[in-house]
Formats: sequence, structure tokens, C-alpha cells
Amino acid sequence: MSGEKMKLYWFSGSTPCWRVLIVLEEKGFHDNTELKHIDLFKQEHKSAEVIKLNPRGQVPTFVDKDININESHAICDYLETCYGDCGKKLIPSEKRAMSRVLQRMHEAHNNFQNAIIENIIYYCMLTEKEKWDHDLLERKYVIARNELQRWEDYLKKVHEEGGIYIVGDDFTMADIYLYPHVAFCVRFGLDISTYPELEKYYNTLAQRPSINKTWPPTWRSTNDEYRYLTKL
Amino acid sequence: MSGEKMKLYWFSGSTPCWRVLIVLEEKGFHDNTELKHIDLFKQEHKSAEVIKLNPRGQVPTFVDKDININESHAICDYLETCYGDCGKKLIPSEKRAMSRVLQRMHEAHNNFQNAIIENIIYYCMLTEKEKWDHDLLERKYVIARNELQRWEDYLKKVHEEGGIYIVGDDFTMADIYLYPHVAFCVRFGLDISTYPELEKYYNTLAQRPSINKTWPPTWRSTNDEYRYLTKL
Repeated sequence: MSGEKMKLYWFSGSTPCWRVLIVLEEKGFHDNTELKHIDLFKQEHKSAEVIKLNPRGQVPTFVDKDININESHAICDYLETCYGDCGKKLIPSEKRAMSRVLQRMHEAHNNFQNAIIENIIYYCMLTEKEKWDHDLLERKYVIARNELQRWEDYLKKVHEEGGIYIVGDDFTMADIYLYPHVAFCVRFGLDISTYPELEKYYNTLAQRPSINKTWPPTWRSTNDEYRYLTKL
Repeated sequence: MSGEKMKLYWFSGSTPCWRVLIVLEEKGFHDNTELKHIDLFKQEHKSAEVIKLNPRGQVPTFVDKDININESHAICDYLETCYGDCGKKLIPSEKRAMSRVLQRMHEAHNNFQNAIIENIIYYCMLTEKEKWDHDLLERKYVIARNELQRWEDYLKKVHEEGGIYIVGDDFTMADIYLYPHVAFCVRFGLDISTYPELEKYYNTLAQRPSINKTWPPTWRSTNDEYRYLTKL
């Protein structure tokens, strides 16, 4: 390990890893970070090298010189707080703007993730298909649709006012918390055209260099197998 | 509503609300904040007054003059960032210390909460007792015990080094993220004496004024009914 370079252990398709990659790119650190891809299917996250840095054996695992920090949201906060002046500022200093960014960050982290990703994708992933409780799934779909509609409404207002990002006219940490979740849903079968404002957001931000460049390489091909969100 | 006072809509027994109350107390704002208790059992969180400020109809709902911010972690971050110099500083500025606090904050928020609170308490709460899947519950207990043991080990090291807080010798936002979870587990039947380091942490910090003063009033009486964690 270089004594000076940042180092990130990551996995293609992990939204927590993707979040960190986007922050590194926005801050101008990406090309100077040693990236080590960890194949979860080969249990590489349980290797001695990773466990030493991250006893939970998870990715992202991150090193900045002699500082080691792992949880994705912690890494994002750390990079923004310690390197606020490098590259793009991702959490504004002005109180009102900050409050809006923090609000959407944590709604994306908690509500969006719980209502859709944990609630349906992880449920379907972790339960044998023969054991899926279809009545329960129907109730989960209602919750997920309501959550998607809420973000659709947020973005409708943004678009009406001429903005393109989740808080309006500025790309912020709120987009970095939200966007990988939206893309994850699309990856797992969400027909994004059902939600035209979300579709516009999804397509517009896909062109942003920090997002386009760090797009999970394994997502460049189609996923026909795990389409859990087709009913939303 | 006063134009100048902060205002918090809260519910006794909600750990997200408790987190915010502790921060307000640590910052010296608690006694100057208008506190409005919202009875979730009476659906008061769905009242027009709350919905206007928080379309999700949840607590905590928070107002600082003309700024409105709701998600508990967002409120905590907001208060610490905007009022860092008031009262107790809760996230250190020095990079290494900050990284440790952020790491434990997000482990408490994600891992502790998922492995124990979501995994067991909410499962038992939201599933009719006759439908509990006991094989699944046994697997959940293993995950929860592992998570508790991890924090037990963290605290063993802290205590050996003479500290009392989760990052050692300083009370920080990491304690504010963690402590209400630990107390919630005790409230729902965890025999904390099974984990002596956690027990010491639990009892020691219970005496801290910000925690003692804001202890959920409804938790002053015993809870004999909802003891979901007796097998941990």
C-alpha cells in the first residue's frame, strides 16, 4: 500500500461502494486512489487483507494515508468534511441550503432504501422464490409505489422550477445518496418510464462525468434474471 | 409558534426523537426549545399541523426559526454543523478522531439497528405472534448476538484503556447514535448483564445529564409485555 495514496476496496454493483466512487471523482481524488476490486462471490471481502482493515469483512473499505474508515456514509461525510474545498463542494454551508441537502440525504438513505430496496429487492434475494409470500409482497409494492411517487413529486417540483438535481440547481451529496438507489432499482427491473420525472432525473444524471465514469462495470450488460421490481 | 424558538414534535419512546433531544440538551438548546409531544397512538403525527411541516407524517419534526428539517440524523447533523461552537462539540475536527466518530455513528445507525432492532424487534412487532417463523427467528438471534458481541468487544477495549464512551474518552455523536439503540434493546427485554461491557456503558451513560434528563418518560415504568430480546 502506498503511504500517500487513498485506497478503496470496492465491488461492482454495490451501491455503497458506488457512492464513495462518485465522491472521490467529484473531489478530484479518483484517479489518484488505488482501487482494489473485491469479488464478493469469491469471498474476497473475508480475506485477511480486508478483515485487518474492516473487521466486518465488508466493502467499501477505505484508507486515507494512516486513517482507516469503512461505512460508506461515514466515508462520504469524512471526505466532504476533511476535503470540503477540494473539487465540488457537496454539502452547502448556508443553513437553509444545507438543511435541504441533509433532509434529502437521509430520506434517501432511510426511507427510499427501506421502502424499496430492503423491502422488496433484499426480501426477494434472500427468500427462496417458492417461499415468497405474495400477499406480503402486494403490501410491499404499495409501500414502494408510494415512496417512488414521493420522489416523483419532489422531482416534478424541481423540474418545474428549472432544476435537474434532487435539491434543485446544485449537484450535492443528496444526489450521491439517492442516485445509486434509483439506478439499483432500474437494474432490478423497475420500469423507470412509469415515473417520468424520475426517468428524466435518471437519464440526465447518467451523463454527469462522476456518475458515468464510475457506473458499475458489471451493469453495462443487461440483467434479465433478477427483475424484482417489474410490478412497480 | 414562536418566531425565534426552536420547536420539536416528538414522541416518548421513539429513539429518533430521543437522539435529537440529547443533541438539543448537549448544545444547551433544550430548555429554549418548544417541545410538542405527539401521541402516535392517537395518530397525531398525521394531523394537519405535522403534515404541513413533515409530509411523511413522522416524528421527529423540527423547526429552527424559518428552517424546517425532519429526519433525525439530518437534524443531528444540522445542529452540530450549524451550531458546532454551542455547548458540547459532538464531532471532532481532527481527522483521525473524526473518522472514528463517523465510523461508529454509521455502524450504530446501520449495523446495530439492522441486526437487532429491525431484524427482531420490528419483526416481532409487525408480525402476529402466531405467525412468527421460529426457525427464522433463531437465525436472527445468531446475527443479533454477533452484533452485540462486536459492540461488547469495542467497549472492552475502551474500558481497558480507561475510557467510558464508545470512541474512548470523549462523549460524541457516536454515543448519541448508539445509546438510544442500546436502551431500546433493554426496554424490549435484553438482559444487558449478559454483556458486561455494554452493561457498564449503559449504566454509566444513564447518569449523563443530557441522557438522564431526556429519558423517555414512558420508559420510567417497566415493560413486561413486549420482551422480544430475552433470548439474546
